[in-house]
Amino acid sequence: MRAVPSDTGLLAPGWAGSPAAAATGDPAHLQALLDAEAALTRAQAALGLAPAEAATAVTGAADAGRFDVASIALRARAAGNPVIPLVADLTEAVGAECGPYVHRGATSQDIMDTAAMLVALRALEPVLADLGRAERALARLAVAHRDTVLAGRTLTQHAVPTTFGLKAAGWRSLVLDARERITAVRDALPAQLGGAAGTLAAFEAYGAGDPRALVAAFAREVGLREPALPWHTLRTPVADLAGALAFTAGALGKTAVDVLTLARTEIGEVAEGSGGGSSAMPHKANPVRATLVAAAARRAPQLAATLYGTLAAEDERPAGAWHAEWEPLRDLLRLVGGAARDAAELVENLRVNADTMREHLSLTHGLIVSERLSAFLAPVLGRARARALLSELAARAHTEDRSLAELLAEQPELTDVDLSEVTDPARYTGAAGPLTDRALERR
Amino acid sequence: MRAVPSDTGLLAPGWAGSPAAAATGDPAHLQALLDAEAALTRAQAALGLAPAEAATAVTGAADAGRFDVASIALRARAAGNPVIPLVADLTEAVGAECGPYVHRGATSQDIMDTAAMLVALRALEPVLADLGRAERALARLAVAHRDTVLAGRTLTQHAVPTTFGLKAAGWRSLVLDARERITAVRDALPAQLGGAAGTLAAFEAYGAGDPRALVAAFAREVGLREPALPWHTLRTPVADLAGALAFTAGALGKTAVDVLTLARTEIGEVAEGSGGGSSAMPHKANPVRATLVAAAARRAPQLAATLYGTLAAEDERPAGAWHAEWEPLRDLLRLVGGAARDAAELVENLRVNADTMREHLSLTHGLIVSERLSAFLAPVLGRARARALLSELAARAHTEDRSLAELLAEQPELTDVDLSEVTDPARYTGAAGPLTDRALERR
Amino acid sequence: MRAVPSDTGLLAPGWAGSPAAAATGDPAHLQALLDAEAALTRAQAALGLAPAEAATAVTGAADAGRFDVASIALRARAAGNPVIPLVADLTEAVGAECGPYVHRGATSQDIMDTAAMLVALRALEPVLADLGRAERALARLAVAHRDTVLAGRTLTQHAVPTTFGLKAAGWRSLVLDARERITAVRDALPAQLGGAAGTLAAFEAYGAGDPRALVAAFAREVGLREPALPWHTLRTPVADLAGALAFTAGALGKTAVDVLTLARTEIGEVAEGSGGGSSAMPHKANPVRATLVAAAARRAPQLAATLYGTLAAEDERPAGAWHAEWEPLRDLLRLVGGAARDAAELVENLRVNADTMREHLSLTHGLIVSERLSAFLAPVLGRARARALLSELAARAHTEDRSLAELLAEQPELTDVDLSEVTDPARYTGAAGPLTDRALERR
Amino acid sequence: MRAVPSDTGLLAPGWAGSPAAAATGDPAHLQALLDAEAALTRAQAALGLAPAEAATAVTGAADAGRFDVASIALRARAAGNPVIPLVADLTEAVGAECGPYVHRGATSQDIMDTAAMLVALRALEPVLADLGRAERALARLAVAHRDTVLAGRTLTQHAVPTTFGLKAAGWRSLVLDARERITAVRDALPAQLGGAAGTLAAFEAYGAGDPRALVAAFAREVGLREPALPWHTLRTPVADLAGALAFTAGALGKTAVDVLTLARTEIGEVAEGSGGGSSAMPHKANPVRATLVAAAARRAPQLAATLYGTLAAEDERPAGAWHAEWEPLRDLLRLVGGAARDAAELVENLRVNADTMREHLSLTHGLIVSERLSAFLAPVLGRARARALLSELAARAHTEDRSLAELLAEQPELTDVDLSEVTDPARYTGAAGPLTDRALERR
Repeated sequence: MRAVPSDTGLLAPGWAGSPAAAATGDPAHLQALLDAEAALTRAQAALGLAPAEAATAVTGAADAGRFDVASIALRARAAGNPVIPLVADLTEAVGAECGPYVHRGATSQDIMDTAAMLVALRALEPVLADLGRAERALARLAVAHRDTVLAGRTLTQHAVPTTFGLKAAGWRSLVLDARERITAVRDALPAQLGGAAGTLAAFEAYGAGDPRALVAAFAREVGLREPALPWHTLRTPVADLAGALAFTAGALGKTAVDVLTLARTEIGEVAEGSGGGSSAMPHKANPVRATLVAAAARRAPQLAATLYGTLAAEDERPAGAWHAEWEPLRDLLRLVGGAARDAAELVENLRVNADTMREHLSLTHGLIVSERLSAFLAPVLGRARARALLSELAARAHTEDRSLAELLAEQPELTDVDLSEVTDPARYTGAAGPLTDRALERR
Repeated sequence: MRAVPSDTGLLAPGWAGSPAAAATGDPAHLQALLDAEAALTRAQAALGLAPAEAATAVTGAADAGRFDVASIALRARAAGNPVIPLVADLTEAVGAECGPYVHRGATSQDIMDTAAMLVALRALEPVLADLGRAERALARLAVAHRDTVLAGRTLTQHAVPTTFGLKAAGWRSLVLDARERITAVRDALPAQLGGAAGTLAAFEAYGAGDPRALVAAFAREVGLREPALPWHTLRTPVADLAGALAFTAGALGKTAVDVLTLARTEIGEVAEGSGGGSSAMPHKANPVRATLVAAAARRAPQLAATLYGTLAAEDERPAGAWHAEWEPLRDLLRLVGGAARDAAELVENLRVNADTMREHLSLTHGLIVSERLSAFLAPVLGRARARALLSELAARAHTEDRSLAELLAEQPELTDVDLSEVTDPARYTGAAGPLTDRALERR
Repeated sequence: MRAVPSDTGLLAPGWAGSPAAAATGDPAHLQALLDAEAALTRAQAALGLAPAEAATAVTGAADAGRFDVASIALRARAAGNPVIPLVADLTEAVGAECGPYVHRGATSQDIMDTAAMLVALRALEPVLADLGRAERALARLAVAHRDTVLAGRTLTQHAVPTTFGLKAAGWRSLVLDARERITAVRDALPAQLGGAAGTLAAFEAYGAGDPRALVAAFAREVGLREPALPWHTLRTPVADLAGALAFTAGALGKTAVDVLTLARTEIGEVAEGSGGGSSAMPHKANPVRATLVAAAARRAPQLAATLYGTLAAEDERPAGAWHAEWEPLRDLLRLVGGAARDAAELVENLRVNADTMREHLSLTHGLIVSERLSAFLAPVLGRARARALLSELAARAHTEDRSLAELLAEQPELTDVDLSEVTDPARYTGAAGPLTDRALERR
Repeated sequence: MRAVPSDTGLLAPGWAGSPAAAATGDPAHLQALLDAEAALTRAQAALGLAPAEAATAVTGAADAGRFDVASIALRARAAGNPVIPLVADLTEAVGAECGPYVHRGATSQDIMDTAAMLVALRALEPVLADLGRAERALARLAVAHRDTVLAGRTLTQHAVPTTFGLKAAGWRSLVLDARERITAVRDALPAQLGGAAGTLAAFEAYGAGDPRALVAAFAREVGLREPALPWHTLRTPVADLAGALAFTAGALGKTAVDVLTLARTEIGEVAEGSGGGSSAMPHKANPVRATLVAAAARRAPQLAATLYGTLAAEDERPAGAWHAEWEPLRDLLRLVGGAARDAAELVENLRVNADTMREHLSLTHGLIVSERLSAFLAPVLGRARARALLSELAARAHTEDRSLAELLAEQPELTDVDLSEVTDPARYTGAAGPLTDRALERR
């Protein structure tokens, strides 16, 4: 075993190999740190605070492949963050002349925070793409199954009928909500530049007339938003990421738990396109994508809680609150990145068994439309008689294993009444169709 | 001890007696449930689905004071929610004729969710008012102390100087962020109406042509937004509340932990206007408001996590995920309501000891400006010599208990150099002033 | 609406009306605070540090019914805890002569912590009783259904058969684990006595020779364990409660989610004794007890997280960490108290449909025993041929809707082989029986 | 960037390079999976269910260095766990003859759970060793500073004096509590063996007479405890790890937050042996070890919450709850492993500035002993007069910047009273010494 064991996702089938994994791994994070350093020197050069050669040299040297990430990780321990050893290595790499312009005036957190935002920016792209795939697939499902009737279930029991189209439209609306929240957060991701205590004083000491111009230039160079204030302990961007990512995990989790339910052996109304096998039972087709998304949805809220908890960070830079953010933020980006990929595959390949859905409507002997019958029979028989009759027949339906429609048809008081529509579950879907249509208008 | 013990906030000095407490207590929640029922009947009447008398009767009866909340709470156990016994009591209260129009076509969750949103709407008003108070007080502090210099602290140690104005402007920016997030969520709070499984079918059975019109009428009557879809298991509104409230608790917590730090006996740079006493030590003036806000900030993230976790709610209405929301959502509203009140009082009455701040700048023997001296001396002495000299003098400053300025002044190589400005911490505040000004432009 | 709205459990069908609710409400908590004060004066009297009359007077006055809990709650705000106003009221109640012996030498936290432990002690009694009920009911179920075969399910799919006895024995083993953890924590609940900063100095100032003797006497009087050290910021007792309670909620949650699954309309292998009704659908029998237990299991972990988070409490008494404990600890006691009650009722009244379980074994056309057939046929046909044959027949079983046993029987190569046992799911339960027996030996 | 980026701890100065990191990395986890597979084949051989050659072959092949962990991680995605591709690779590695004895009768979870317990066992050894180091260092500190007086602080303010010995003894008591909890959990870590649905049926099918004997043999071979029941969804071992680890993180966090407070520039009563530097300010000596421990304490509770949440796992093996455990459990082991290392270094090298502690006792002008003076003066002057006098003099002490002792000495009514002892903070430490002594008796 090496002194520095590396993780490659052995415990993480949910995100290993995903674009989000590539965008958040140590190599990618190291690159983001280097990108931040290079952008800082370029910004200083653009304002005449550093020679153009320095900008060129730092930018040229800022290639993660040239640095020993494991060594930096180990040396990070001394002062508690990886920027210090990285700056040492980068300074050496650019040589004696340009070295002094590396990291000049900055504090470690300027670089760490900027890199974290860059990593987030890059990791959210595939998330948004996968949410887009999921949204489109769900729209197709909603359209295709606008009138596919299945049992609406509440507290695990058949309640009244609904449609699979409405279900898919609901899943899609959550995906759209997630996409909106992720997009809003992504568009606001700020660069960080404040210097030792957020006053930008060192940049002034090194010659910047108005160091706020340097912040603007830095943000431009690095491709992030210019912040109104240094945010070393004003952690809105991190909290906003936490919220949007926890929301997305949960939103996708809703689809996952529904699929896990509907795919049960006894229900079988949907199935994953290609379920995962089992090491012990060759016949099994497990809903693996849904399982992994559901697992992500179980973890994300607590990771977000840690990040919300670090808002209360003391002083100009805190002792612990900041350090507690680094891994949970990355974990959230990965989890959600993996979940978005799995969710897209899940809904793109979902098999819908409309016949099975239809068959299950009769499992309650027709009682799934008892609500409608109450409304229908009250004016015909009077409210009290209607209720008494339905209660009696509901009991008989179960004990005699016959349908409520049959039993009703035998009632002398109802001989002249056409019950065919009101006892048909497929005709008791209310506004499911129009609601689906309206939901699909949203883009 | 009574069978139904009542809580009045004995364990909650953070929110007892606050407007948010009044808006979220059982009586207020009961009233919101009744408001929802009354609005539903009125909406049906407006569409001709119920007689006007029923709307009048239900509205008239919907007064929480007339109902036995403890009895409803106990009877809620049978079916797992309080709407069922409430509907029984309300139906009885309106009499035989109008009784059938109570809750007609609705499911318990329609009423519970609508009431929860109403409670949130009402509880967020005082939160926003208190955030406004806090924001204004912080703006005043930032203006008044734009140039009040104090030690910037990082990882608990003096780093470089900053200003109290910038600190207050930072606190204010978080309050503004919180206000924006709360306002956005408040403005989107939706009514809930879906019927048994979210298809609105029962309303059709009772005669509604397009039951979506009923949803719109209901939302109007109850004073909430019309939802695009029933959201029994599409919990965006609850998750958004969770995020905005956890953010607010953390944002206020930032101010609280700073005050707790700066108010320490050894630091004493700020003090609460009127600190709380102690049962054992009459001389103490505890920072009680900050303590209670900090306590809220410790709890809110985990409450929000529970709510993010309930996004993954199976079926048309879930068995547990929904029930797990009720108390945590209320707890969050209360905690944040109390914290906003305490934070407003805290910053309105904060005492700032500018002299003490100034005195502390010399605690590091002038090393608080060593960053500036490095920048300044490098061109004068050469980088290597400048660094070596500063290291040597920093060590001597500590051992000889003298200031760095004094020791520098004794250096022959610096006799011709005017060090007065560069050794003065009060003149090393970088862009703190302009940053404060810019931050104050935000409203 | 009153200025001090009272909660009586309107949002808490899971615990309203339970013994744990009665043991944790404001009146009970107030009584515990008074019990702590009275025990302190008695302990001082026992050591000659206070007159016997004072002990008698304080003990006599320490009746929660005589105090205005709402007023105390409101006045708690000033200094951030309810002990200060309570001591004022209690001092007045005992009169001028004995007043000085109320709370003498103690700090608020001594009383708050001792009361919290008393409340926990009292709230855990019904929890343990209900766990006992659940354990006995589950033992009966395990015995009665030792050989009731049902489908073992993994990742939502039928895997291989198991028995309901083993399932019940597993649920019981978790209940026993919970009981052991709760009992261990309960038996260690300590009194708290340290004075202002945990040195017991004030008690010495008031005459105690060795104030540790006072701690011992206090613990005896109040009925809790004597702590080795004051634990104002050594929060092991609170963290241990958090862990044991979160464990118990989760342990009961396991039974709940299994019942929710097995009670689904399509599965119907178990049903709650008397399910809860629905406001919209009279025919429904919802698994309400399981729903409420599952809801508790969703909330408890995050409440425990808050309490684990407060271990990191600074100084001799902290500013926020302690205050953040009060409500979450009570919430956990209530949630678990309610969940234990519901779980006991759930398993005592659970209806088990062994016939349905049996029928479902054939849902996979016999593939539920494919694992066994692999093992059986390999030596008969050779491993490769056995595997190929099973794959082919598994596919045919599905497409032809026939059982694997039938198809196998038609194979010429197997004409001489008796397949009756190896294709019978009921005879493929492995060690389920003996495992159940062994598990039942544990008490 | 490679397709499979590897993490080496770049974002984790708190645990990178620690023994716990080595014990929990992907290579170590892969080895544990292989150890479990090898133990299973050996156990089968021991019972005559597999040839001895198979046991030898599998044991020989079970060397993580020979497998491509990144490839396994990627292939894990198909079925949602890494055991399936690992078994394929291992089977190939052992060759055609012994291949059939790899993983025979087991389910993926048997191997994953057993490996997780092995990893925990191995990761907890250095944790216990570091807790031992910390405990011994704290005992030395407590002895050395038994009578070193410093200000006791409550709600951030000086309260009454205490001793650093008592503080260190308190920290040590938490370390001992943690060690006990970790040890108890470690000693109970069980092997997992149940087969597809926990009935051990496949092992019977492959010839085991009483498969429970195989479980016992497997546990012996792998070096873990024999479980009473398969615990695929009876997750007591995981929950117990969660609780013990969250407790340990918090217990160490208590020391960390105290050090962070006492090391502040203005307080300076302790310092880390060798503080970490800063990239911007060469003079700074940051309390880095305490910072990293505090960061771990902020994260651990929420990771534990996720694990407590997975107790409610449905069926014989769950779809999501189990998968959600893998990374959080590893994260907890690492975090606590790193925190224990840092805490040991922190307390072994802590510098204690007793003189500074002593000086700070006078910061409140002697009011730090006002509690004692109240007790002392009441019998001398009468309670009312004593209180009035102290209030008056306390106010004067502040405004005149004089000590309470001086002002008292000027009072005519106290001319004959010797106030030297009662006004000396160093003599008002109550039972701090004896409490420290008693606490040190615990081992």
